Amino acid sequence: MTRWPLPEPMRHALDLARSAAASGEVPIGAVIVKDGEVIAGGHNSPREDHDPTAHAEIAAIREAARKLGGERLEGCELWVTLEPCAMCAGAIAHARIARLYYAAPDPKGGAVEHGAKVFEHEQCLHKPEIYSGMGEAEAAELLRSFFRDRR
Amino acid sequence: MTRWPLPEPMRHALDLARSAAASGEVPIGAVIVKDGEVIAGGHNSPREDHDPTAHAEIAAIREAARKLGGERLEGCELWVTLEPCAMCAGAIAHARIARLYYAAPDPKGGAVEHGAKVFEHEQCLHKPEIYSGMGEAEAAELLRSFFRDRR
Repeated sequence: MTRWPLPEPMRHALDLARSAAASGEVPIGAVIVKDGEVIAGGHNSPREDHDPTAHAEIAAIREAARKLGGERLEGCELWVTLEPCAMCAGAIAHARIARLYYAAPDPKGGAVEHGAKVFEHEQCLHKPEIYSGMGEAEAAELLRSFFRDRR
Repeated sequence: MTRWPLPEPMRHALDLARSAAASGEVPIGAVIVKDGEVIAGGHNSPREDHDPTAHAEIAAIREAARKLGGERLEGCELWVTLEPCAMCAGAIAHARIARLYYAAPDPKGGAVEHGAKVFEHEQCLHKPEIYSGMGEAEAAELLRSFFRDRR
């Protein structure tokens, strides 16, 4: 049996999540893709950076916007290993991300299909296309083993 | 008649909002207060910074966390001229802000008393005490005149 390979951006995001774990941060990774190429990436780093906003998505969005020289990432995709929280979903809307791909759902902190459901309100000025599930098992296992090791 | 004076942090936040307008950014300002002193402040600057996450609250939170050397702003207050959006409300929760003061409500983009109501879901791990309305008229007039001038 051949298991269908994960798309390259999600593999890249999973690699970034592993880097986060290696430096003691919750293993979540994200990349921004434009025209089929990864143009920015980041992982969770609030502890190391002394920055409560330093989630993977925020790091990737900030880097991509800096590179593209504007405040909007129109036509860009964001690939992330976990369902975004309210902060990151809001940032995705502000950045006008065209497509959001996330691997694992996050019933405890997610705000896309759970809780605040940020994209479902008229106060949210942009809603990306949303795809989930690719890489879910890998992403969830990274988080489980991180928290298991910390107990 | 003597009009009750605005608390100093809100006057400071309004000054920062005026600075934003002066550089062509939407006039919203925020400060962080710890033990009665303003320790950080910021204003909207997504255009100038090429950063869709550069809202006043995010700028103030990042500066305060950097100064205090941690990812949490326990015991701190955030004073902001407009009801926070979903991104900023999420950041306020992550930062463990103790008390949130905002001047004007934002029916079009707010996520505290409007829309996503970020603090009202179990996925939100921290809810600050929330006070609103002080400085509402001044904050709303700054925004109105900014958008009037742009038309």
